[in-house]
Amino acid sequence: ALFRLFKAGGGFVDSESRDLKPVFEPRSVAVIGASNNPTKWGCIILANIVSYGFRGKIYPVNPSEEKILGIKAYPNVMSVNDEVDLAVIARPAEAVPQHIEECAEAGVKAVIAIAGGFRETGKEGEELEKESVRRARKGGLLLVGPNTMGVYSASVNLCALMPPVSPRKGEVALISQSGNIGTNLLGFGSTVGVGFNKFVSSGNEADIECYEYLAYFGSDPNVKVILLYLEGVRSGRKFMRVAEEVSEKKPVIAYKSGRTQAGVRAAKSHSGAMISPNEIVKAVFKQTGIIQATTVNEMLDLAKSFVNLPLPKGKRVGILTWGGGYGVVASDVFEEAGLDVVSLSDDTIRKLSMLLPPYWSKGNPVDLVGVFDRSIQPSCLDIIAGDLNVDIVAALGFIVGSGAFAGAFGGQTHSKEGKNIVKEWIAKADEESMEYIVKLISKYGKPLVAVTATTDMEVVAKAAEKGVVVYPTIETAASVLSKMVQYAKHKKRKEEGRL
Amino acid sequence: ALFRLFKAGGGFVDSESRDLKPVFEPRSVAVIGASNNPTKWGCIILANIVSYGFRGKIYPVNPSEEKILGIKAYPNVMSVNDEVDLAVIARPAEAVPQHIEECAEAGVKAVIAIAGGFRETGKEGEELEKESVRRARKGGLLLVGPNTMGVYSASVNLCALMPPVSPRKGEVALISQSGNIGTNLLGFGSTVGVGFNKFVSSGNEADIECYEYLAYFGSDPNVKVILLYLEGVRSGRKFMRVAEEVSEKKPVIAYKSGRTQAGVRAAKSHSGAMISPNEIVKAVFKQTGIIQATTVNEMLDLAKSFVNLPLPKGKRVGILTWGGGYGVVASDVFEEAGLDVVSLSDDTIRKLSMLLPPYWSKGNPVDLVGVFDRSIQPSCLDIIAGDLNVDIVAALGFIVGSGAFAGAFGGQTHSKEGKNIVKEWIAKADEESMEYIVKLISKYGKPLVAVTATTDMEVVAKAAEKGVVVYPTIETAASVLSKMVQYAKHKKRKEEGRL
Repeated sequence: ALFRLFKAGGGFVDSESRDLKPVFEPRSVAVIGASNNPTKWGCIILANIVSYGFRGKIYPVNPSEEKILGIKAYPNVMSVNDEVDLAVIARPAEAVPQHIEECAEAGVKAVIAIAGGFRETGKEGEELEKESVRRARKGGLLLVGPNTMGVYSASVNLCALMPPVSPRKGEVALISQSGNIGTNLLGFGSTVGVGFNKFVSSGNEADIECYEYLAYFGSDPNVKVILLYLEGVRSGRKFMRVAEEVSEKKPVIAYKSGRTQAGVRAAKSHSGAMISPNEIVKAVFKQTGIIQATTVNEMLDLAKSFVNLPLPKGKRVGILTWGGGYGVVASDVFEEAGLDVVSLSDDTIRKLSMLLPPYWSKGNPVDLVGVFDRSIQPSCLDIIAGDLNVDIVAALGFIVGSGAFAGAFGGQTHSKEGKNIVKEWIAKADEESMEYIVKLISKYGKPLVAVTATTDMEVVAKAAEKGVVVYPTIETAASVLSKMVQYAKHKKRKEEGRL
Repeated sequence: ALFRLFKAGGGFVDSESRDLKPVFEPRSVAVIGASNNPTKWGCIILANIVSYGFRGKIYPVNPSEEKILGIKAYPNVMSVNDEVDLAVIARPAEAVPQHIEECAEAGVKAVIAIAGGFRETGKEGEELEKESVRRARKGGLLLVGPNTMGVYSASVNLCALMPPVSPRKGEVALISQSGNIGTNLLGFGSTVGVGFNKFVSSGNEADIECYEYLAYFGSDPNVKVILLYLEGVRSGRKFMRVAEEVSEKKPVIAYKSGRTQAGVRAAKSHSGAMISPNEIVKAVFKQTGIIQATTVNEMLDLAKSFVNLPLPKGKRVGILTWGGGYGVVASDVFEEAGLDVVSLSDDTIRKLSMLLPPYWSKGNPVDLVGVFDRSIQPSCLDIIAGDLNVDIVAALGFIVGSGAFAGAFGGQTHSKEGKNIVKEWIAKADEESMEYIVKLISKYGKPLVAVTATTDMEVVAKAAEKGVVVYPTIETAASVLSKMVQYAKHKKRKEEGRL
């Protein structure tokens, strides 16, 4: 049953989780059903593998072609004169068991069965799925899927994906029980500055289940943060044990759907799924240390902070704001998220009073009250970050973004040149601000996030390259930071428990 | 006191609210403190008024200049040989009472006092503010502010704003107790496709209070939806009566800050403000029919749907999805927002089965299961929208957006030309889809929103021009639609009560 609440034991992970190296670090890949017809998945997937620059050898398999996309093709996988670590089967469901058998015969170590038409479509498909698993296990093969959009691994530049996504490289691993959502997250990651090290669209999880991917990524030193899109978990007990172990080492962030009757009906392809109302999900996640993402996209927001920022030592926030109204909103939103908009120390107030006009509010948030001087703003941020009362820093409007604002400024200057001058000025100032933020984070060892009310994705992506976290809304920042505080607490408690 | 709960009476609005026409539809504007120095607000505001193309006459006032920005200047407002409806005072706080007196002498009907330095800064400022109000009332003048970023009105092309914002024209009115948040919302509106008819940064509300703006916009036929950013309301009783009356006529959407101790501390400039925990805010808003925005930016999301879509007749949602995973997420999110992901009628299932492959899920959400055929998708949407069980339609992925996805596709084609071909193809398909959505809305009289997981703002703005509502996340769509359902219910109850 799904997500039963029980106290986790431990120690079995190593014995039950298999080594998934052939899936994520293959030295050679065969594409069974490879094709020169660009409307066929056997063409698209091969093209994705080739164009992303896979580091190993590629063997297209198709009995009726000599060459596919310019690469020598083989009539079947047995005729490849090399060790094949991984085979991607881009053939209809009916043909999959036979191909698995051939792969076993050829000594292939792992297969990815792309096609749908298995358990999710009814009795007949279920039989095909069972037969596929039976043959894979008999042949000692790992089986990804079936009904999957594929696998990605930055370690060997493997992009064996159905959709035309070209993931940004980074330190995040993603396990998704929906191919669409998973590959969309890879795509968005590029826009908002989240890079991936490994990805699997786990499909029907007929053989390799979620908890095995989780255990594997948990012990992968290239992976810093793990994301999970979950509809239902078959081996709930194993999943929880692995999650508890892994989340002691690195953040495990999950979005769980199937929280309502309607959701479970829609997810009926996962026949084992039962409703897990949000209260249950929350309780299970809390127990195992999994960080719950409130929305699908929040997984990326969370990943960005966990990858780039130190964990907070407490929940006291110091806020710099450009505009009092946003200071008011931030105070409410941070407090409601369980953070403390703390009183700043007398020393901090004194230092800030030397920089700001006499009518400044002398409180937290620190409102720059319209001070345009770019030499004062960074000093104010430094003073706030250095306050011993402050564990977390939020800088609102400190990075400006060259979108709407610059456009509007340009409107005032009546010329395209004027627009560009303002835009360039802001871009340069923003770049300096980003470098300053990086310095402050390493100087004080505290998480610092910037909130920039912009729809300008360029500034967000540029910030990400420098390791600076920029969110478009205060609400996102507050939610992410409060979850970092919770995770840091969970981790500390665990560490103390082990002593 | 703020937001006391009581049953509203009625009938006093007309007698206590003044006619704000001189503020929002002046035939002539004087700018006192106008300047040729581009770092002065007296220059920037005048430039904004000029460049937005104000339809009336403009009179710069400055005793030491002959011409300002090429326009004849006057030594004082009395020397202008014309009726001056509105004067913008861009002079320091200390000078404001004197200028108000001069305005009264010159027969000016309304003044906007831009400068800060009044009640929000302490005792001295409070005296200046009282003196300003005294002189304004004695002279029969309306006073906006002080401590305001100005006023905007599409009716006469008046953009008397401090920041360089050039609002998109439309049918929304915005009253903001924060100048920064207000003018930022105007800027964002352009990006996400929300146009404004009127705006006021209400500042300290020393004379004209929030409820008067609300009453005025309530009876303005050019205004279809009213947005409010509120920190505190002085005349709570009047505010509630006006809000109740106005929200019967048109949607009043509000974001209330000052919900926590920290928030109220940050908003201390509004000395009357008391904490209103979110439960209280919710209760008051519910009673008066005000729609509560969960975030500042949700005000724009809500405005977009209320302006463009018919009100839903019920809460039953039909969902079209491109990808099962998003269907699962949407089912959860819509249900959790209080909407019903309803069973579709047998007739609908039969009609859809004639178009979709045999293995389609035969339920709601309707998953297109990878059918690329652009002739089938619109027909499916039509069938769902026409179902008598369905009050609201959500189309996920129906509009694609030319952002990340097209970029990725282009990556696969290995060429810039390839990228552009795909991008253009998607843009064209999206435009057809938008036109189709407009047709369906008018055919069935039901609200239909598109959810497009894109960061491509072009597609969002283009959609808005056609009156098509596109949201970047399922959560936004669910929240907005559920609030539309609540408002429709409130309005119906009120109408029935009046019969």
